[in-house]
Amino acid sequence: MPAPAPLERTGPVVARALRVLGAFTSDRCSMTLSEMSRCSGLPVSTVHRIAAELAGWGALERDAHGRYHIGLRLWEIGSLAPRGLGLRESALPFLEDLSQVTRENVQLAVREDTELVFVERIAGSRAVPVLTRVGGRFALTATGVGLVLLAHAPDEVLERVLARPITRFTERTMTDARTIRAALADTRIRGYAVSDQQVTMDALSVAAPIRDSRGDVVAAVSLVVHRSGATPHAVAQLLLTSARAISRALPSATPDQ
Amino acid sequence: MPAPAPLERTGPVVARALRVLGAFTSDRCSMTLSEMSRCSGLPVSTVHRIAAELAGWGALERDAHGRYHIGLRLWEIGSLAPRGLGLRESALPFLEDLSQVTRENVQLAVREDTELVFVERIAGSRAVPVLTRVGGRFALTATGVGLVLLAHAPDEVLERVLARPITRFTERTMTDARTIRAALADTRIRGYAVSDQQVTMDALSVAAPIRDSRGDVVAAVSLVVHRSGATPHAVAQLLLTSARAISRALPSATPDQ
Repeated sequence: MPAPAPLERTGPVVARALRVLGAFTSDRCSMTLSEMSRCSGLPVSTVHRIAAELAGWGALERDAHGRYHIGLRLWEIGSLAPRGLGLRESALPFLEDLSQVTRENVQLAVREDTELVFVERIAGSRAVPVLTRVGGRFALTATGVGLVLLAHAPDEVLERVLARPITRFTERTMTDARTIRAALADTRIRGYAVSDQQVTMDALSVAAPIRDSRGDVVAAVSLVVHRSGATPHAVAQLLLTSARAISRALPSATPDQ
Repeated sequence: MPAPAPLERTGPVVARALRVLGAFTSDRCSMTLSEMSRCSGLPVSTVHRIAAELAGWGALERDAHGRYHIGLRLWEIGSLAPRGLGLRESALPFLEDLSQVTRENVQLAVREDTELVFVERIAGSRAVPVLTRVGGRFALTATGVGLVLLAHAPDEVLERVLARPITRFTERTMTDARTIRAALADTRIRGYAVSDQQVTMDALSVAAPIRDSRGDVVAAVSLVVHRSGATPHAVAQLLLTSARAISRALPSATPDQ
């Protein structure tokens, strides 16, 4: 076994490998070495070496055109993330029930620092178009799931979100701190969030919190429906019931779990 | 920006980080530093440094008990793997149709060297219990999806599979090379695979190939049903139709895709 590398050498090399992996996004899911170099800010020679190692392990794969994409092995390891596939596996039967009963868009999201990440999305067969993608990120301030997650986030997260420019999607998107704080207070009091025309002008989303065995909010589930004819309160009762069922189905957080 | 590390130093460090990540499995999805050290074969001091870096980036997360698990950020990056979530997104509507029509277990798998990896699994509401898990691996020789993938794998993959001991799940599991070669030939001729009592004594699985735009088999889809009363030929027609629909829905492989 090789001796442990000195601290100053371990750091940069692992960080560079992570920078290469982090250069891949949904819009840039396949890259040549020179594109990887440009997007990671690392020299081609370094990227060449790191990509060879990552590909040898299966974290990257190379196609017939010499372009690299994320490898199945990384997907396998990533699928062990409790907040990703673990949560999704527990929630999926209930999300499918919601989808089949309503035929609307069902979404499951978790907070990752000052954004949300969609862990599951089932597109409804007669549903309004939505902007989301599994594994994709989104602002916390606009969507129903985002408002639920932000309403139950630590204060310092909210302050950091409000300190930055708020993304505007429509003329109805909330962008000032006072309005957002009021919406978050409403969300906590009612137990669910409503986002009306905040992301697209024809959609309304209602979201409810999913809690772990300690009562902490760990995820949010939403229905995104056509706003014409939608009755948020009725949708909310459906969502709150499903969110409680999912909460109960989560594995309890024990030291050996 | 730091200068690129010499070749002999880049290698081991990235490899060690990947060894730490690769130590996580579905049975060992949360570990202390000393468990990570034992499972990766690396000294605790090395694991300590690497884990801190991986956690800083979000590839690992640490819970309230000091145990590490795979982080959401790695799940996000892993979700960009075309053979993982990309395939799954294209296939999901058709898998859901199969699930709703049959109420049986629907499985989607790809080959990774000499094993298969389950990319999606929808458990049927009145279905026979199955041994599979999304992101989990399985032998190619026992299941329907495995037989399809092996029937269309390069010869050298088949030879490597046959050169090793074949896992036996039941008294009916095929384990000798001649029987397996015959089953693979049948699979190619009929266009689908049947695995009868090969994994559990009460289940039968029927699987069909999913092809990319060049006609290469890139995945397999199966239904796993109670074997009593099942008519493999009728199930096969359903599967072949769904497999063709999924094949058509796959994004075509272009250099900039």
